[in-house]
Amino acid sequence: MPKPHAPLLATAPMMPRGQLLSELCPSREVLRHVTGRWGVMVMMALLPGERRFAELARQIGGISDRMLVQTLEDLEADGLVERQAAAGTIAVTYRLTSLGADLSPHLAGLANWIETNLPVIQKRYKGERGG
Amino acid sequence: MPKPHAPLLATAPMMPRGQLLSELCPSREVLRHVTGRWGVMVMMALLPGERRFAELARQIGGISDRMLVQTLEDLEADGLVERQAAAGTIAVTYRLTSLGADLSPHLAGLANWIETNLPVIQKRYKGERGG
Repeated sequence: MPKPHAPLLATAPMMPRGQLLSELCPSREVLRHVTGRWGVMVMMALLPGERRFAELARQIGGISDRMLVQTLEDLEADGLVERQAAAGTIAVTYRLTSLGADLSPHLAGLANWIETNLPVIQKRYKGERGG
Repeated sequence: MPKPHAPLLATAPMMPRGQLLSELCPSREVLRHVTGRWGVMVMMALLPGERRFAELARQIGGISDRMLVQTLEDLEADGLVERQAAAGTIAVTYRLTSLGADLSPHLAGLANWIETNLPVIQKRYKGERGG
């Protein structure tokens, strides 16, 4: 059985929590949803506000309708995204829940870090060093 | 061609950067490495300091030797992890580079958030509300 999860963030922000490294830890499934191939991108696309399915499909380059459906379903099941029918129409929109909005700064911080540091990382692939 | 990446973090920490959502953006490959099935866990396992391959394999539950090799190679190519031979021995150890150490708080923040909020998320799967 996995150990119970206690909020250790306040006391040990930089320490690995251990549980995530355990094969039994259910954190892994959530991590897979939010950081999987499309999870981060869907969360980022919803950051400014609610979006329709077609808007998300257009904004996120390369995602198939099938993968967008699956990603939205996973995030919805985790309680990070909610779908709602707009009053008086058949249009369905998606938006971050309060839990999702609470998570999003972590994903945005990660995405920002990567985009900011991409030139350094790309230089390595080209075999360039310095300047 | 993807647009050049400018560090926008200071001016717009919560705005999506846009490029990550572009199919052409090379950020995606790096995101895939650090958040892929094992990337976060390897980075977390290296957070306290250098580790040997066998130590990582033992600490990260469920990872195969093949996947650990692949994950370490990807992170090494990105400049986030480096391998080094200990002086006077044939032992090889892995550790975070300064770039990797700079990234790790973002990954630790994400992992901590998930572990802290897991009880809320798990309640949803069980259909329990309130309490």
